Amino acid sequence: MKIGFIGLGNMGRAMASRLLAAHHEVHVWNRSPGPVQEMVDRGAQPLANPELAFEADAVISMLADDDAVRDVLLRNRIFERGSRGVIHVSMSTISVALGRELERAHADAGVAFIIATVLGRPDVAAAGKVHVLAAGEPSAIECVQSLLDAMAQTTWRVGTQPHQANAAKLAMNLLLASAIEAMAEATTLVERHGVEPAKLIEAATGTLFSAPAYSTYGDVIVTGKFEPALFRLPLGLKDLRLALEAGEGAGVPLPFASTVHDNLVDAIGHGDGNKDWSVMATVARRRAGLPERHAHAA
Amino acid sequence: MKIGFIGLGNMGRAMASRLLAAHHEVHVWNRSPGPVQEMVDRGAQPLANPELAFEADAVISMLADDDAVRDVLLRNRIFERGSRGVIHVSMSTISVALGRELERAHADAGVAFIIATVLGRPDVAAAGKVHVLAAGEPSAIECVQSLLDAMAQTTWRVGTQPHQANAAKLAMNLLLASAIEAMAEATTLVERHGVEPAKLIEAATGTLFSAPAYSTYGDVIVTGKFEPALFRLPLGLKDLRLALEAGEGAGVPLPFASTVHDNLVDAIGHGDGNKDWSVMATVARRRAGLPERHAHAA
Amino acid sequence: MKIGFIGLGNMGRAMASRLLAAHHEVHVWNRSPGPVQEMVDRGAQPLANPELAFEADAVISMLADDDAVRDVLLRNRIFERGSRGVIHVSMSTISVALGRELERAHADAGVAFIIATVLGRPDVAAAGKVHVLAAGEPSAIECVQSLLDAMAQTTWRVGTQPHQANAAKLAMNLLLASAIEAMAEATTLVERHGVEPAKLIEAATGTLFSAPAYSTYGDVIVTGKFEPALFRLPLGLKDLRLALEAGEGAGVPLPFASTVHDNLVDAIGHGDGNKDWSVMATVARRRAGLPERHAHAA
Amino acid sequence: MKIGFIGLGNMGRAMASRLLAAHHEVHVWNRSPGPVQEMVDRGAQPLANPELAFEADAVISMLADDDAVRDVLLRNRIFERGSRGVIHVSMSTISVALGRELERAHADAGVAFIIATVLGRPDVAAAGKVHVLAAGEPSAIECVQSLLDAMAQTTWRVGTQPHQANAAKLAMNLLLASAIEAMAEATTLVERHGVEPAKLIEAATGTLFSAPAYSTYGDVIVTGKFEPALFRLPLGLKDLRLALEAGEGAGVPLPFASTVHDNLVDAIGHGDGNKDWSVMATVARRRAGLPERHAHAA
Repeated sequence: MKIGFIGLGNMGRAMASRLLAAHHEVHVWNRSPGPVQEMVDRGAQPLANPELAFEADAVISMLADDDAVRDVLLRNRIFERGSRGVIHVSMSTISVALGRELERAHADAGVAFIIATVLGRPDVAAAGKVHVLAAGEPSAIECVQSLLDAMAQTTWRVGTQPHQANAAKLAMNLLLASAIEAMAEATTLVERHGVEPAKLIEAATGTLFSAPAYSTYGDVIVTGKFEPALFRLPLGLKDLRLALEAGEGAGVPLPFASTVHDNLVDAIGHGDGNKDWSVMATVARRRAGLPERHAHAA
Repeated sequence: MKIGFIGLGNMGRAMASRLLAAHHEVHVWNRSPGPVQEMVDRGAQPLANPELAFEADAVISMLADDDAVRDVLLRNRIFERGSRGVIHVSMSTISVALGRELERAHADAGVAFIIATVLGRPDVAAAGKVHVLAAGEPSAIECVQSLLDAMAQTTWRVGTQPHQANAAKLAMNLLLASAIEAMAEATTLVERHGVEPAKLIEAATGTLFSAPAYSTYGDVIVTGKFEPALFRLPLGLKDLRLALEAGEGAGVPLPFASTVHDNLVDAIGHGDGNKDWSVMATVARRRAGLPERHAHAA
Repeated sequence: MKIGFIGLGNMGRAMASRLLAAHHEVHVWNRSPGPVQEMVDRGAQPLANPELAFEADAVISMLADDDAVRDVLLRNRIFERGSRGVIHVSMSTISVALGRELERAHADAGVAFIIATVLGRPDVAAAGKVHVLAAGEPSAIECVQSLLDAMAQTTWRVGTQPHQANAAKLAMNLLLASAIEAMAEATTLVERHGVEPAKLIEAATGTLFSAPAYSTYGDVIVTGKFEPALFRLPLGLKDLRLALEAGEGAGVPLPFASTVHDNLVDAIGHGDGNKDWSVMATVARRRAGLPERHAHAA
Repeated sequence: MKIGFIGLGNMGRAMASRLLAAHHEVHVWNRSPGPVQEMVDRGAQPLANPELAFEADAVISMLADDDAVRDVLLRNRIFERGSRGVIHVSMSTISVALGRELERAHADAGVAFIIATVLGRPDVAAAGKVHVLAAGEPSAIECVQSLLDAMAQTTWRVGTQPHQANAAKLAMNLLLASAIEAMAEATTLVERHGVEPAKLIEAATGTLFSAPAYSTYGDVIVTGKFEPALFRLPLGLKDLRLALEAGEGAGVPLPFASTVHDNLVDAIGHGDGNKDWSVMATVARRRAGLPERHAHAA
């Protein structure tokens, strides 16, 4: 398939590489030239401007945030002037409100549009092991399913309106942030009673909580190895803020999200703004008067 | 082994049955006579009073709460007058403070004592599939390991001071309560955006949250089948209160525990006090103005 | 009037002194003898046991907490054997549940009973400037109104069931704790933007918040003078716990009370357990990464 | 003095009228023409565009929110092309971040700039009884003090950097929102124990809480008269969001602000989005299972 690809950050490059590996014809655009050259070296075609990406069978956009999406896609409504029959797949983590705005704009322009948000980090994406939450017309999803299959382990179809994939992504990150905070409180509680946090996490992940969310972040928490970050705190804070906004817009109070937000802000105030977002676990420790844990060399 | 068994509630009977099945000699006591007869029918010996339970190689106590433990065990310090070399295994879910008090009282009396708290419901216990969190002198745990093996799938040793097993149990329930509340908020958020809650839980348990805590309670939440209860709300509220007390005693703020406590109280105020504790998920729905979900017949 | 007075702590002595100053005949009992002697020196009559206090026109009890009330009053139901027509006025800060239990026990015994809780510290009580929240039969309150007038500036009648005065007292302390936490957050927010906390408190107490709660505690917060305590943290924590229990019993979630509880526990974990309860304001500062403020000598 | 006045909403018109009453020469601009005509009828001069407002001794801007300020003032940097020596007084309730941006932009342009935020509603402003929180160079504030005196009862100088007045305003509204939520919880707690909420508010405002914040909003809460709004919920939610953002920017966790935010969202979800923001008090009642209170006709 001929694919236009807009946005070559860490995730974008990993995804585009998967498409190249699956022998698709990939035309790429990025604001800064470095990543473009990297992808060209791997077999992609460079584009002079993002508008040209829509001269394809499908367009995948993977931009950093709401501002980037507004700036690149919405401001000049570049999706209006592409090939007949093109399908746009938005994979950026953005607000539900903006997802909805994109949805309406594409409907007005008569351009097929789905949203497919991604669960997983760049290294997982490079291995094609991320998961995708897709929403939109089933027939439109069907048309690009082979592309999603090239990029992701599984596609979970969550609804027929594209912005629902944004809501689902934010909800998933709320689950994850809550699991981290819960482990932070639980391990601090036992540590203050003389129990090794690692013992609790071992028992938890060996029983009711035998899942990647708990084993991955449980390990980071008990070892205190918050750098290099799996998922940087500012990104986590952004997603929490988007979840709170999505709740605000729909009349859904989210007390856990509010508590996690408070703790991420606490971590920033203590200089941990560039670490993994699970550094929020140190907030519980600090509040309980426990000394900072130092990660051992690997 | 000759075993004294004190407390034949739902959990106690399941555990004692496992010991009988493993061909131990089990002498049982219970405040009310019905459960005693039931266990006698399965091969146990009845005891005239709980003091006699200590004339054994090991005593297992499985009582309802702090009050029952104080009343049956501590008030008359019945553990002081048992066989030489007897080991007492406390399996009740009680406060850390009372665990500590029992620990000191047994040390003063020179009676071997460990605490082995249980993760799992009566039906799981009947199948020998519960997990145990044990704490105390390793040699003492070793002596009763065969009994623990007869009753539980795995024994997780969390520390050398018995009360640490109480702290670990409360921490584990805090993890569980937090997972439930997180699912409640996440499913409500997506439902208000038109996504089926079941779709989100399916994606979660198929990816980062592929663990019993999420599949079991996620299913209860999306079906709204809060009766019959897996774990009754008042028991859950008791454990949350014990966790908050354990935090208070050790200087550990637990904002997630506080939020869950608020929501369990909300559920009680709305007449759901006899349902499964995951009925706290309806609090998030109600606060978001969503109608009550009614469980369909199986 | 002939008055029996049970409990001569700081508050009890101040109240009993007011009654002596108003020329009442005051017979006093206290567990430890020191305070009794002090009151005898001021003109009171000593009692050999608390039961004798009920041989009077009215009895005032002012005990430390639920345990003391249970031990001194309820265990032997000493109120059952007093003078005909005696009225018991309970002024202790106790749980609503215990207030209700006392209410029923007195009704069963046919002894007139009201609860009159006190707003104010011992030094304010000594000057007769405290306020009283009274509940019970209006005619019973009427009978002892002159005594309340001797002890307090104003009597606020809040209901006809005695335990309602306990609920009102706890609610009032929740208002107070919330005002302190609100000032803590607001002053920390502005301080992090370079504004003197004192400037904010000055503007607040000069405008919408021109009330003793804000001026008294606002001053403590901005000067950092948490010792000597106006109201010791463990007492504040006790009252918050009683408020949360009263909410739990009645199905009332209290998120502000939960947050304040978390912060008081945080303060304890940092070694501030013996300071004024407004030391919870340092929690907000610490969480924001601000250095500890040191009180200047007067 | 010759004054340019930008923004004639409810507050703007009230403030501009005070300046006219004090015999200043007031030149007004507003996006929509109706309010301009109203002010012209009272003696003001109309302006063709907002840029002309800066051809004056002082400019007062009173715009609705961040977007309006960006659009009218910042986009074309109209403050750069005014009279020599003009002083701009920003009175809008905006984010601290935007206050800081305006501050820098004026410094770059060499234009004197202060921020003077307003405490009070339009009807209070019309009577000249609002309060002002001012920040900026003391000499600059001095120059416009007579104008502030014409508009406000008192000017509280909170700092020398203009944006500090934004932070102080948001902190003040956080105090106010917290007082409302505290009253909501406290009155619900006593109501569930059979005490009239009005009795508690009467006792509170008669003692420790004898301040306008408590008497004004306490009355609204106990009568349930949330319409017409003193301060509309969306405005309150906006200010809470700005406070949370100001905290986020400065590393200050604000758990009370988060709780209030959750409750305002709950109120919106229940269709109360157009009422007074103290309608958040109904959230506590509803969560406790109490029926809605209906305001009686006046």
